[in-house]
Amino acid sequence: MRKLNESVSLRKICEAIDAPPPAGSDIVVLAMASLALAGAEELSFLADSRYKSSAANTMAAAVLIRAEDADVLPSACIPIIVPDPYLAFAKTAQMFEQLLARQDASPDDLPAISPLAVVSAEASLGDEVFVGPGTVVGEGVVLGDGVRIMANVNLGARSVIGARSIVHPGVTIYPDVTIGTDCQIHANTVIGSDGFGFARQGDRWAKIPQLGSVRVGDRCEIGSNTSIDRGALDDTVLGNDCIVDNLVQIAHNVTIGDGTAIAGCVGIAGSARIGKRCLIGGAVGIIGHLEIADDVIISPMTFIASSVREAGYYSGTFPVLKHPQWERVAAVLKHLPDLRSRLRQLEKLSRET
Amino acid sequence: MRKLNESVSLRKICEAIDAPPPAGSDIVVLAMASLALAGAEELSFLADSRYKSSAANTMAAAVLIRAEDADVLPSACIPIIVPDPYLAFAKTAQMFEQLLARQDASPDDLPAISPLAVVSAEASLGDEVFVGPGTVVGEGVVLGDGVRIMANVNLGARSVIGARSIVHPGVTIYPDVTIGTDCQIHANTVIGSDGFGFARQGDRWAKIPQLGSVRVGDRCEIGSNTSIDRGALDDTVLGNDCIVDNLVQIAHNVTIGDGTAIAGCVGIAGSARIGKRCLIGGAVGIIGHLEIADDVIISPMTFIASSVREAGYYSGTFPVLKHPQWERVAAVLKHLPDLRSRLRQLEKLSRET
Amino acid sequence: MRKLNESVSLRKICEAIDAPPPAGSDIVVLAMASLALAGAEELSFLADSRYKSSAANTMAAAVLIRAEDADVLPSACIPIIVPDPYLAFAKTAQMFEQLLARQDASPDDLPAISPLAVVSAEASLGDEVFVGPGTVVGEGVVLGDGVRIMANVNLGARSVIGARSIVHPGVTIYPDVTIGTDCQIHANTVIGSDGFGFARQGDRWAKIPQLGSVRVGDRCEIGSNTSIDRGALDDTVLGNDCIVDNLVQIAHNVTIGDGTAIAGCVGIAGSARIGKRCLIGGAVGIIGHLEIADDVIISPMTFIASSVREAGYYSGTFPVLKHPQWERVAAVLKHLPDLRSRLRQLEKLSRET
Repeated sequence: MRKLNESVSLRKICEAIDAPPPAGSDIVVLAMASLALAGAEELSFLADSRYKSSAANTMAAAVLIRAEDADVLPSACIPIIVPDPYLAFAKTAQMFEQLLARQDASPDDLPAISPLAVVSAEASLGDEVFVGPGTVVGEGVVLGDGVRIMANVNLGARSVIGARSIVHPGVTIYPDVTIGTDCQIHANTVIGSDGFGFARQGDRWAKIPQLGSVRVGDRCEIGSNTSIDRGALDDTVLGNDCIVDNLVQIAHNVTIGDGTAIAGCVGIAGSARIGKRCLIGGAVGIIGHLEIADDVIISPMTFIASSVREAGYYSGTFPVLKHPQWERVAAVLKHLPDLRSRLRQLEKLSRET
Repeated sequence: MRKLNESVSLRKICEAIDAPPPAGSDIVVLAMASLALAGAEELSFLADSRYKSSAANTMAAAVLIRAEDADVLPSACIPIIVPDPYLAFAKTAQMFEQLLARQDASPDDLPAISPLAVVSAEASLGDEVFVGPGTVVGEGVVLGDGVRIMANVNLGARSVIGARSIVHPGVTIYPDVTIGTDCQIHANTVIGSDGFGFARQGDRWAKIPQLGSVRVGDRCEIGSNTSIDRGALDDTVLGNDCIVDNLVQIAHNVTIGDGTAIAGCVGIAGSARIGKRCLIGGAVGIIGHLEIADDVIISPMTFIASSVREAGYYSGTFPVLKHPQWERVAAVLKHLPDLRSRLRQLEKLSRET
Repeated sequence: MRKLNESVSLRKICEAIDAPPPAGSDIVVLAMASLALAGAEELSFLADSRYKSSAANTMAAAVLIRAEDADVLPSACIPIIVPDPYLAFAKTAQMFEQLLARQDASPDDLPAISPLAVVSAEASLGDEVFVGPGTVVGEGVVLGDGVRIMANVNLGARSVIGARSIVHPGVTIYPDVTIGTDCQIHANTVIGSDGFGFARQGDRWAKIPQLGSVRVGDRCEIGSNTSIDRGALDDTVLGNDCIVDNLVQIAHNVTIGDGTAIAGCVGIAGSARIGKRCLIGGAVGIIGHLEIADDVIISPMTFIASSVREAGYYSGTFPVLKHPQWERVAAVLKHLPDLRSRLRQLEKLSRET
């Protein structure tokens, strides 16, 4: 848990998140913490009313909480009443993050181009741009105002990074990729590597050059160690407000609608078209050349082998069992069609008698 | 879509791909595009006859197409008749890529060793080698003629990169790894990290040093963010003409036969022996110490837990269902052995009556 | 197979691994190799008695083997009797690794800070620390004695790396992360990237700043291209003696108990609590906010969707089938609840007659 050097009052927090200041709003805190770990110097939150009982013994100084849950808090703990505690937590955490960043600020962080970066003379950099050491900025690259490119990043020729976006260390962005404004791309992610396109040519593979690129919209966040391939002819496209977790594979010519969230370890094959506001669970696999409608929710580790044309909640995983039971179930599973035939046979006999 | 600055005639394209020039072969184009997006300045292709109807309204100037499909094209569109349109597309795209590369060429790209690279005096570099800034070339490394190592790459001691191979930014190659000729390794991939070998020693793990290495054949392409571990004693081996997509895990002592293709997110455990010309679908899992025959095709997300000794097409995934239906199916699934017993009991009764 | 320049006697090996020297212990070897590939200059081992027959034709000079298996060896091959051949192999390989390292040693490897590294004046470095070229060591970083940070590594502000730990090339460690002593982190892995935390705010996502960090215990090994996210409020925690393979995703606030092993491609969602000494198979998926007991073993590719409260061996994968058979099984599977109803109906009829 990281703490502020100087405390902040509940009143100031309530102003920042637009909540009515509670009685006792002169009380000050130094950090945020979970209900279980928070002490007298910390603020916490209760997002899910089902876990209301977990707040009964909290030692937190104050808790962001719904009006209807507030009675659970011990009397020493100050409730800050909000309609959506999780969103209020997000905003409060944003405030703490800014205070911590100011506290940590050092001359190393000032907007500046490191003398150890390699910036092409043909690149165009906006105001207040930061470029870290070891970073390579190719010919024709455009960096918007306030862009921060950390250390050892590779920006290919003619790539464009929109204003205020942050690119963490070790990221590789291939030529001609476009990233929108207010994005964040986490460490060691790759955007614009070649799509996996090959044609059989006898015993060998003829490589299909990947002549498209990647376009990522505004306010997107991409996790670490994720790969987004460039298109074969047309571009691979992520809309605005897409959030993508770590170790995700997005193949060539995939399109992802605005506001869709993709959890870690997901793989999406070429030319899949994913709708808006979808929630794709971790390690889901989606084959290529299909369509997922808007507002589809997919359980983790489900395999999507054909289009999902209707909004809704979909699943498809094998239940976990103790190993010996799993062995028996798996053995019978192979004979399911035979079992059905035998059942039909019995039904027929039963109808005849 | 990237366009040429100077147009190219259909005649010139037909020469390059060894196709008969059509009537109207003086027509010129500036780019390739999909059937849906192509306009009067673009060339397209129809690879799969099943989607023939999608070509009926194309605005493309010309289309690479099989003779038997050509009648579908609008009269303004010129058919270029080829026996394998996908392969013809591959070759045409290769031609466009070369023209685009020439168009983009800048002094930065000239074969040269960046003054910001760290190249061991004990390394051996062929002719026309490019080494980017921030790249580290260890002691005893051998780079063949025409090799291009991009920025911020790490080449461990005694590693060998064959002629004309390309290593993209951020790749790490550990010591003693050998890569063949005409390979391409995409960004942030790791080759030669330690295999996952440990022996229990009371409450701790005794690490088994990984004394083998990795050998990759000629004309292989490895995607981005992929990991190929070094062998424990013997080497991990990829044959010639292997193509491996992004985020693939290839564990120690795996061997992969010539011409095999491995899609994204696949995991292959230690000492698995994969045959030649296999097609391994995305996110397939293959356990260790087993054998996959030549010419095996595996559906995406299938789990291979024992040897596959016969060529063929294999699958093993749970079907996707609406969540409430999935819940019911999963609940019954656990009782399959019991259902079979009860069915047998009824059959017995039925035979007795 | 890497060979020593100078041979080592079996006697010396037996001393190092604490085994009784066999008759013939003046015999010398140059390398270790598998039973199949070993020749007269090599030492091998037989770990698993079930594969005893594979040792019958070995050409190895000597073999680490259990007393009860030793009779299988050809007469020319010297048995070195040990109670746990796999552990003895680990220790012997460690000895060979040290000899090879000494053999490879070059001035480049001497403990030193590369002049091409960027080390903050506010960082604190122990004795005999190595920092490679292109590596960035942030403000307030603490490196213990004997730490080796390879090339192009990014160490965020205030991160701490314990004594004798090794960080391979291309790794990114975010600010405030703590790594214990004697750890090894393989290339291009990311520790401390933001957890995937967002709250819906209309059509957009409000990012939840990730104010926690990551703490990794002593003697942990983390593979290549793995991602471990920082906590939202509290820290993400790996205990001591945890071993984690390549391409693993560990989300925010996960805790992993001492001695647990996690194979490649595993994904663990936020706030999961994994016990001690667990063995998590490759590509397993574990959802968030659940608990796995100590000593749980999970088969590869199993999906864990609820807590596992009891030690034991768990599985949950679909069996692999020839594709046409799979199609039939998958088609019937959807109707399982209906089949059960029909079976019940028949049972009822049968009881009535």
